[in-house]
Amino acid sequence: MNAEILSVGTELLLGQVINSDTAYVARALSSVGINVHYTATVGDNPERLYQAVTDSLARCDLLVTTGGLGPTDDDLTKETVARAAGVPLAMNEDCLATLTRYFAGRYFGENQKKQAVLPVGCTVLQNDNGSAPGCLFRSQQGALVVMLPGPPGELIPMLEHYALPALAGSNSHAVIVSKNLRVFGLGEGLTAEKLDDLLQGSNPTAATYALQNECFVRVTARAANEEEALTMMQPLIEKIRARLGTYLYTEEDGSLEETVVHAAMRRHMTLATAESCTGGLLSERLTSIPGSSEVFEMGAVTYANRIKEQVLGVSAHTLQTYGAVSVQTACQMAQGIRRAAGSDLGIGITGIAGPGGGTEEKPVGLVYIALTDGVHTWVRRMPGHTGPARSRAFYRYAAASHALDMARRVLMDLPMQENPEFPRAESLPAAMDEKG
Amino acid sequence: MNAEILSVGTELLLGQVINSDTAYVARALSSVGINVHYTATVGDNPERLYQAVTDSLARCDLLVTTGGLGPTDDDLTKETVARAAGVPLAMNEDCLATLTRYFAGRYFGENQKKQAVLPVGCTVLQNDNGSAPGCLFRSQQGALVVMLPGPPGELIPMLEHYALPALAGSNSHAVIVSKNLRVFGLGEGLTAEKLDDLLQGSNPTAATYALQNECFVRVTARAANEEEALTMMQPLIEKIRARLGTYLYTEEDGSLEETVVHAAMRRHMTLATAESCTGGLLSERLTSIPGSSEVFEMGAVTYANRIKEQVLGVSAHTLQTYGAVSVQTACQMAQGIRRAAGSDLGIGITGIAGPGGGTEEKPVGLVYIALTDGVHTWVRRMPGHTGPARSRAFYRYAAASHALDMARRVLMDLPMQENPEFPRAESLPAAMDEKG
Repeated sequence: MNAEILSVGTELLLGQVINSDTAYVARALSSVGINVHYTATVGDNPERLYQAVTDSLARCDLLVTTGGLGPTDDDLTKETVARAAGVPLAMNEDCLATLTRYFAGRYFGENQKKQAVLPVGCTVLQNDNGSAPGCLFRSQQGALVVMLPGPPGELIPMLEHYALPALAGSNSHAVIVSKNLRVFGLGEGLTAEKLDDLLQGSNPTAATYALQNECFVRVTARAANEEEALTMMQPLIEKIRARLGTYLYTEEDGSLEETVVHAAMRRHMTLATAESCTGGLLSERLTSIPGSSEVFEMGAVTYANRIKEQVLGVSAHTLQTYGAVSVQTACQMAQGIRRAAGSDLGIGITGIAGPGGGTEEKPVGLVYIALTDGVHTWVRRMPGHTGPARSRAFYRYAAASHALDMARRVLMDLPMQENPEFPRAESLPAAMDEKG
Repeated sequence: MNAEILSVGTELLLGQVINSDTAYVARALSSVGINVHYTATVGDNPERLYQAVTDSLARCDLLVTTGGLGPTDDDLTKETVARAAGVPLAMNEDCLATLTRYFAGRYFGENQKKQAVLPVGCTVLQNDNGSAPGCLFRSQQGALVVMLPGPPGELIPMLEHYALPALAGSNSHAVIVSKNLRVFGLGEGLTAEKLDDLLQGSNPTAATYALQNECFVRVTARAANEEEALTMMQPLIEKIRARLGTYLYTEEDGSLEETVVHAAMRRHMTLATAESCTGGLLSERLTSIPGSSEVFEMGAVTYANRIKEQVLGVSAHTLQTYGAVSVQTACQMAQGIRRAAGSDLGIGITGIAGPGGGTEEKPVGLVYIALTDGVHTWVRRMPGHTGPARSRAFYRYAAASHALDMARRVLMDLPMQENPEFPRAESLPAAMDEKG
């Protein structure tokens, strides 16, 4: 069964409201095995709405509309959809009785009564959270039509409790199940190249998607039930796992920060951070995870050199000889915050986020990230770009992500594999790779 | 000029990602006077995409596509759109040179190079936050086509800095000029109520828009040139200014953090922050502003009580008697970080971001924010919600915004006006309002 979703509302075309209804309906339909091929939005304009409904009904087996069922005058969806579907409207007396009870003791005018006017012969979808009922009916073209109200607080319960069960009756019993495997350290391009032939299947399927500074692989299977779908996708997931190695950091769709916080909780280990160019972004990401207070001890944002010396004990000699943006300073920041916080791990980040402050020797985007467990200290170097610089936000986010990736590797006893896009050989002086 | 927006991506049809790009593009187009009549989403399916583009180009003057410009094989937007628009593709050598610089020192395979293949004769839209360029070209049908990347972090800057100016050039000879007046401390509803009759005009117009925890008023005028448009909107801006008072924090569309950093630079004053529940978000926002190193001295994220005592000198007695989430602790955090950093202003934030950790007396969302200049210490209290709690991210962002608003008021010699939505009377013990 191929479906289309049509949202109605001028506020959506003005961009004043983000259309979350479509995503909700799409996810719900795919959970019962209905494919969505196309979604569209039109304003409160009868001609364009009529055209859009007519086009859809010529193509699809199921059209779901959202919005435009309320009592105000610009809500013309019902009239227009019924006309395009070739089904007359009439006052539904059961519905009118329900509405009369709903409005008991309040103003109940013609506008409100209009909500009980529905396509003749439709299945009424009860609204437990508002006045406008939805409906399900078959168009003259043969496609099913479901009309849902726009407000998510009304749409979601109506869809779950009334529309989906009614549709499940009309559809096959297949379900679609997806898993998102998250990847850090390989770009989307490189990930797709490594998986190549695995991206060609039809059931299960795998596809790559970009996220900020990382990417994920979505594996999807269609089967009679969830268990069967999960069993079908296992062999494919195992192949992807083998190809991506430790670049694949979670199969549970969690973020890098969640992976780190949960790993630290399991190990009963604590963390502390000393940040310069990232300005608190790393601690912010760690502490965005509920429960992080168990493992996060302290963060210091040390912009001024004076503060680096005072709070972290970075030596004046190091700052003078190598500069604030150097392997040496990053290591001493990590070691200093670990000491100050009394934590198991310490992380230090120092770099040039731009747009100003870069030199030929130390360009914008150059960042050193150090992690110490008290015995070893590891460092990664983001080399900065020689071409056009990227944004301050980009470098800051990337540096925080690298720190999280390093922490996850230490917490999960994984090799401190370098990002192949920032190769290890050029990435740091050999002597600094591990230091006591 | 009538526009349509077409988003490409199977993930949107599966409902796994909410389509926020469409709303963003729609709002941007309407801000320059371009009407959006229709928006649609199709998956990574060449036939359906071809059909959708063909249908659009037959109806509209401008088609904006989002998504599908990346290096992977399912990214077929460019080829399909160009084919439907009747324009051939070719390797754009300038773009290839830019990409070569962009990937310098990293893997740069055929997939990545493909991103420089663009419609012949197009205007290239530079991507400052990723690799895939966008483009603007005229289809054989006569409509303009703009192709933008899907990730919002790439799409938004490309649209603002390159696509909108290019479109403004291709549009009619009138210019549309907008100014965004940013407001903190009044919700969008309350702002709209205060402005009421001022929102009814037609040229210039004023409209309110919600942002995360704040809102803005966009004033737009259409005239023969920019100067004339600015002159036309002046009287309206003055009325808005008078009604909103010091809740209006900038007329230059800058953020709260930018307003604070620039005010501190002008005053040659420095800041330091001590954060508990916001976990570094405040320092992250401050240091996201280029040049903030001139005024930001130090941030401390003090989750553990031990660290609050050690680093900030919060007294054990205070922590035991009043608790870590109290007016007293917030004040001592602000005073402690000011002392430790040797800064002019110190800010302390302590609260319960949730979802766990709330009690009847101290519910989730309760946050104290203190600011000291060494003479006075001011405190704001976010009371938390007694109804259904909001997200951890919501409370953290709101608390950081209040801290920034307090800093702006002190730096700009404005009264420490309370947010009317968190009224002063219930907001803090009177004796704590100012303390020596």
